[in-house]
Amino acid sequence: MRIYLAGPDVFLPDPLARGAALKAICARHGVEGVFPMDPLAAEPPEWARLPEFQRIALRNEAHIRAADALIANLTPFRGPSADVGTVFELGFMRALGRPVFGWSNTTLDFLSRTRAHLGRLAAQAPDGTWRDGEAMALERFGCLDNLMVDGAVFASGGSLEVDEVPAAARWTELAAFERCVAKAAGLR
Amino acid sequence: MRIYLAGPDVFLPDPLARGAALKAICARHGVEGVFPMDPLAAEPPEWARLPEFQRIALRNEAHIRAADALIANLTPFRGPSADVGTVFELGFMRALGRPVFGWSNTTLDFLSRTRAHLGRLAAQAPDGTWRDGEAMALERFGCLDNLMVDGAVFASGGSLEVDEVPAAARWTELAAFERCVAKAAGLR
Repeated sequence: MRIYLAGPDVFLPDPLARGAALKAICARHGVEGVFPMDPLAAEPPEWARLPEFQRIALRNEAHIRAADALIANLTPFRGPSADVGTVFELGFMRALGRPVFGWSNTTLDFLSRTRAHLGRLAAQAPDGTWRDGEAMALERFGCLDNLMVDGAVFASGGSLEVDEVPAAARWTELAAFERCVAKAAGLR
Repeated sequence: MRIYLAGPDVFLPDPLARGAALKAICARHGVEGVFPMDPLAAEPPEWARLPEFQRIALRNEAHIRAADALIANLTPFRGPSADVGTVFELGFMRALGRPVFGWSNTTLDFLSRTRAHLGRLAAQAPDGTWRDGEAMALERFGCLDNLMVDGAVFASGGSLEVDEVPAAARWTELAAFERCVAKAAGLR
């Protein structure tokens, strides 16, 4: 079983070491982790003339198509939501109909995080809806992130695993990730 | 030709009026716009027992599957990136192999916006890489958003349309959207 490991982990100072750590956990559970920066077995020669960002995007898409499941690091990234590249990949795999899992090193729900992010710009209308400084509504479904993310995970047969981790360990702690791996491995 | 209209427009104070405005532009170009809040022709009866957020997610997925192309409002939403629900849907459609388009009411590239968002937390390393306060790298490919977004649009045969619009008109101006509609209609 091959599992694509989506997340902003590729932006860490030593992304290859991070990828190795994630893959080691997968191996302990008898599955193969695929990190976005892994080379493709065979890369179409015509990609050589594309700009680097397009080659990376096509490589990641190919990795996802070749995987049996996806585990996404949904820990909030530079705002109340997960990294958009990660969520793109989660949506991509969901369309392929395979299981998608998510994990996060915060247990705060999306509404709480968005309110914290907006601070005094968030205000509650008489009907109970929270709105930001541009009058745009905040989701209030008790989800971990935008409802498309939570909805895809549950509909696909995956699960969300969350832990409340201190900020200093937010990009190192992997307990919630490992629970996703164990559950994905259980689907074999 | 049916075009799914992804975007945080659903969070506006009058989302149905917004949907009607987007669809009117589509109709002028001879295509049919599908707004996320549109009802499905037939909704499986078993969805009735699901929580509301799951029903909405499944309905949006069904709308995307039934569409020929997708146009995403990528105007930055509560941070340097587009709304993650929108990007999920863009990834979903990309996996289906159909054209995806994006538009934004800012012309600033992703690196510039992320640096502005981070302020003094962004610092440039000797190798030229920008990193945030957690030492995580900023993308520097000159893209509009995360490279998965730009990569998908170009690989799918779609395009990105951007205008620099004053903040007060960011959620009303539709010129860049209309250029996407015209280009999508040209693919018929």
